[in-house]
Amino acid sequence: MAGEHEIVAMERKALERWCKGDPSGFLEICAPDVVYFDHALPKRLDGLDGLRAYYGGFHENAAGAEGFEMIDPKVQEGSDMAVLTFNYLYRAVSEDGLKRWNTTEVYRRTPSGWRIIQTHWSPTQPKLARSD
Amino acid sequence: MAGEHEIVAMERKALERWCKGDPSGFLEICAPDVVYFDHALPKRLDGLDGLRAYYGGFHENAAGAEGFEMIDPKVQEGSDMAVLTFNYLYRAVSEDGLKRWNTTEVYRRTPSGWRIIQTHWSPTQPKLARSD
Repeated sequence: MAGEHEIVAMERKALERWCKGDPSGFLEICAPDVVYFDHALPKRLDGLDGLRAYYGGFHENAAGAEGFEMIDPKVQEGSDMAVLTFNYLYRAVSEDGLKRWNTTEVYRRTPSGWRIIQTHWSPTQPKLARSD
Repeated sequence: MAGEHEIVAMERKALERWCKGDPSGFLEICAPDVVYFDHALPKRLDGLDGLRAYYGGFHENAAGAEGFEMIDPKVQEGSDMAVLTFNYLYRAVSEDGLKRWNTTEVYRRTPSGWRIIQTHWSPTQPKLARSD
């Protein structure tokens, strides 16, 4: 997309690969000290090795995506870090699963380019069970 | 706490005020361009004015807290930005409500000190309704 921030373009490419069942698009642009949150984990996950192991289990699920939308991506940039936020709409092949997500990615500028140091995915307005 | 990062100390003070029903502890350390996510909102909330209006509605709820824990706070710092992540345990007076949260705060260094430019709160392992 013309005029798109470099970080938005990187994120979009990683998401395109993710939706084809390839989590390595994200893993390749993560720093070794990346930290990660999603709703399914009991605690923050620390480090690229742990994230690689965790993403390994997503491979087949991710392949069920028909496409996605990054809604209103925004980059707030400092001299060597930036935070990207957006709402994410996931078009799955099946009707199951969470479709709308809140997403925060923090990137660090390195000699090899921007690298993700923090990822936070959470469902947008999930329907909670009454026991919660 | 001795040796605690300045940003962790700032966050802790804001949370202490929050738990006494005072959201202004956070509002005072947010930048005008702060962006905000939580699970209850339909979309990212942009800007301090909107956040002030939204937090206004939390005043009474927040006053029901007996205390909290910031679990394993981590700061990843650049030259003029930093990201703080932690798991949050909320001890409410009542048994209702979500107790465990994933938290990401992005801070920017300004002439007035660190200011929050991005906040992302999400429930840790929420029990989802089956229709989701």
